[in-house]
Amino acid sequence: MSESVAWIAVDWGTSNLRAWGLDEAGTVVAARSSDKGMGKLKREEFAAALAETIGDLEVVGSAQVLICGMAGARQGWLEAPYLEAPTDLRGLAAGAVHPEAGPAYTVSILPGVCQKRGGDDVMRGEETQLLGLATIIPEYSGLVCMPGTHSKWALLDGTRIDHFSTAMTGEMFDLLKTHSVLRHSLGGDLDGPQRADGFAAGAADGLENPANLLGQLFRVRASALISDRPADWCAGYLSGLLIGTEIAANRHQIGNQPVPLIGSQALCDLYAQVLSLAGAAGRPVDATEVVLAGLKAARENA
Amino acid sequence: MSESVAWIAVDWGTSNLRAWGLDEAGTVVAARSSDKGMGKLKREEFAAALAETIGDLEVVGSAQVLICGMAGARQGWLEAPYLEAPTDLRGLAAGAVHPEAGPAYTVSILPGVCQKRGGDDVMRGEETQLLGLATIIPEYSGLVCMPGTHSKWALLDGTRIDHFSTAMTGEMFDLLKTHSVLRHSLGGDLDGPQRADGFAAGAADGLENPANLLGQLFRVRASALISDRPADWCAGYLSGLLIGTEIAANRHQIGNQPVPLIGSQALCDLYAQVLSLAGAAGRPVDATEVVLAGLKAARENA
Repeated sequence: MSESVAWIAVDWGTSNLRAWGLDEAGTVVAARSSDKGMGKLKREEFAAALAETIGDLEVVGSAQVLICGMAGARQGWLEAPYLEAPTDLRGLAAGAVHPEAGPAYTVSILPGVCQKRGGDDVMRGEETQLLGLATIIPEYSGLVCMPGTHSKWALLDGTRIDHFSTAMTGEMFDLLKTHSVLRHSLGGDLDGPQRADGFAAGAADGLENPANLLGQLFRVRASALISDRPADWCAGYLSGLLIGTEIAANRHQIGNQPVPLIGSQALCDLYAQVLSLAGAAGRPVDATEVVLAGLKAARENA
Repeated sequence: MSESVAWIAVDWGTSNLRAWGLDEAGTVVAARSSDKGMGKLKREEFAAALAETIGDLEVVGSAQVLICGMAGARQGWLEAPYLEAPTDLRGLAAGAVHPEAGPAYTVSILPGVCQKRGGDDVMRGEETQLLGLATIIPEYSGLVCMPGTHSKWALLDGTRIDHFSTAMTGEMFDLLKTHSVLRHSLGGDLDGPQRADGFAAGAADGLENPANLLGQLFRVRASALISDRPADWCAGYLSGLLIGTEIAANRHQIGNQPVPLIGSQALCDLYAQVLSLAGAAGRPVDATEVVLAGLKAARENA
C-alpha cells in the first residue's frame, strides 16, 4: 500500500527540477526528479514537464503543487514578481502566482527577492532556502553563505532578509578553466595529489589580497610556466584563490557564530576550510532539508 | 629612389607581427605587417613568415633582424630564456637567441622577463617597451601601466625593472561578455549613448570596493533585470568596474608623477580617466614609438 500524497513541493531551477510528495504531517513519502530545468523549456511546456515528473504520485484530490526557483522567472512558466529586500520571507506565499496547469493540479510559484538599494541584485530559489533555514535555526541572526555557480551571501535576521549579494565564483572558475589563457595550465588530471596544496596557496593569496584578484589570477599560468606547477596544483590554486577572495570580501560581516553554509557537500567543505583560515567557522546545512523546510513554511504562511 | 635599410626591428606577438626597416641613423624608412602571429605558426614556419613579410625591403648586405615578443616563447620560433626580475633591461641583448633563418638574415630574438619572488609572473614584449620608455623618459622612476588583454604593471627605475604583475582585465571583459550569464545583458549596441554613464558607475564601484569584484560583477545582470539598464550601459559598467578594480589594486604604488600608459589610444584614454577619478594621473605614450625605441636601445647594447 503506497502512502498518499497531500501536497507536492518542487524546487525548479535552471538545469533541473526536483519534486517531493509529502503527507499531511509533512513527511516526504515520494521523490522525483527531472532534467527539464527552466533553461530547457518554453512557457507552454512547463505544465507537461510537471505532469510527466509527478504524474504517477497517488494524490488526495486535486494536487496542491508549491514551486520555488526559476520557474517564476520572466523567461519561466509565469513570472512571480520579486519581493524587494529588506523583507520578511513569511511574505513569500502572499506573492505567489498561479499558472494554469489543468484540473489535476493547483500550482503556486513563489517569488524571488530583488534588491535595489545597496547594490542591484536578484535571487530565485535561495529565498525559500533562507526561509527554511530560519525554521531549522530559528534563533539565527547573521550572515548565510550559499556557495555555487552564483554564490549568495545574505544577512538574515530570523525570517527577515536585510541585504544580500551574489558572487560569480563558481561560474568564474568554469569560465577561466574552459575559455581563458589559464586553460593551458589546466589540461590534465585536475584532481591529483597536488590539488590540496594548490588550494591552500590560492586561498592564502585570496584572503591576503582580495583587491588584487585580477592580478593574482595570472599566477595560475605563470606558476605552470616558470615553477613547473602541474594541472592539479593549478586547478586547486584557482579554486582556492577565487573562494579566498570571495570570503575575504565578506569577512567584515561575519560575527562570532558559525556561518551557515547551504550548498553541495564538497563545496561547503571547501568554504568551511577557507572560513577557518580566515579565523571564522562554517556550519554546513543540508541543502535539500533546507529547501523542503522553506516550502513547508511557505505553505503554512499561505 | 628607395632608402636602403640598415637593419630591421620586429615586434612579433601572438596575433600579429610588425616590422620596420631603419637606416643607420635610426630613422624608419619602411614598415610592414602581417597577421602571422606566433599563435598561428609552427616552429618551422617562422623563417618563411619573416621572409614573406620583409622580403621586399632593400637591405644593405645580410639583414640584421632584431625581434621582441612571443616569437621567443617556448612554443615560438626559438625559446629565449627569461631574464629574472629585478634586472637591468640593458641586459636584454646579451640574452638574445639566434634562430637559423637562411643566408639573407641574421636574426636575434630578445628574451622576456620572469619573476619568481613576489608572485610568479612573466612578460614577453613588454620588457622591450619598458627599455624604450627608459630612453624616452630617461629620468622616470615609478609605476608604468600597459593596458591590454593582459595588462602589465611594472615598477621601473631607469632601465631597471624591480617588480611587475599581470592583470587579466581585457581577457576578463571578453570572457564575461562572450561566455558568462552577463552576456544576456550585453546583447545589442554596446557603444550607445549610455556607455559613458555605465563606465563611470562601474569605475566608481571598482575603485571604492576592489575586494568585492566577484560580488559586483553580477550587478551587470541585476541592473538589466530590475533597473532596465540597456546593453550600452551594462557594457560600460563592466568595463569601468574591471578597470576601476585593477587601478585600485595598484593605487598604493602610484607616486606623484603621472603614470606612463602604454597601449592603444582608446584604452589609455579610459585608464587615464579612471586614474584621474582615483586622484592620480596618466600619461599616454605612443606604443609604437616605445617598442621601436626599445629595439633600438637593445641593438645599441648588443
